[in-house]
Amino acid sequence: MADRVIEELGEEECLRLISPGGIGRIAYTSRFGPAVLPVNYKLRDGAIVFRTAEHSPLDQDLRTGITDADYKVAFEIDDIDLAAQTGWSVLIQGPAHHVVAAEQEAVRQSGVEAWAPGDREMFVRIVPSRITGRRISPA
Amino acid sequence: MADRVIEELGEEECLRLISPGGIGRIAYTSRFGPAVLPVNYKLRDGAIVFRTAEHSPLDQDLRTGITDADYKVAFEIDDIDLAAQTGWSVLIQGPAHHVVAAEQEAVRQSGVEAWAPGDREMFVRIVPSRITGRRISPA
Repeated sequence: MADRVIEELGEEECLRLISPGGIGRIAYTSRFGPAVLPVNYKLRDGAIVFRTAEHSPLDQDLRTGITDADYKVAFEIDDIDLAAQTGWSVLIQGPAHHVVAAEQEAVRQSGVEAWAPGDREMFVRIVPSRITGRRISPA
Repeated sequence: MADRVIEELGEEECLRLISPGGIGRIAYTSRFGPAVLPVNYKLRDGAIVFRTAEHSPLDQDLRTGITDADYKVAFEIDDIDLAAQTGWSVLIQGPAHHVVAAEQEAVRQSGVEAWAPGDREMFVRIVPSRITGRRISPA
């Protein structure tokens, strides 16, 4: 196996890497312990925004804690080359909030789109309190 | 956008989908709240196994709880087609344990390999207590 090096990434580099949006994985505490789900996200004003279905399992689990300002979630984005065994990953940690109705149109116009069919009218924002990342490259 | 349908997947189908191994994301409770990291995993005897560095942040955070039989983690695997906006995801929930020394050689021979450089001698096993999945397909 080729030698590789690992480096920690600064916040600015992490935000640059995740700025195109795409697929990320949200982790939160569900009724069955930690849970992770892939969602389609955008980066907007330095925060992660995504949509999900009202009354979906994710909605219900987030809702349990989402009125608590300290309800923390994690959001992970990565780009990994399986063949080369290289790539990067970024981890956002911070509180999750519902996007209030008055802001939803602006978020919608930024192109945040859910893939799963059905009414997708719950908007969630994650405000980063901690941004970390690492990259594994050829030596 | 083309119509798509979402379906819940049974345990057997979930295990079939994740059986090739590859990249999954482990979620656990870190000192900073929920955390997610990509790791290279294999499915072995119905359990998720992967390797990480001793004394890595993941090791330290897992270690805090890993002696507790109730220390729950989540492991997510997916395969998503960005262009078609279709794909599947599987979520494994259950306790995480260090693989004891006597078993490590067998696990090593199954080809579980960590990508990040350095001594990677901590083996972790996640025994599923709950397996759920869903698939989004063209209608």
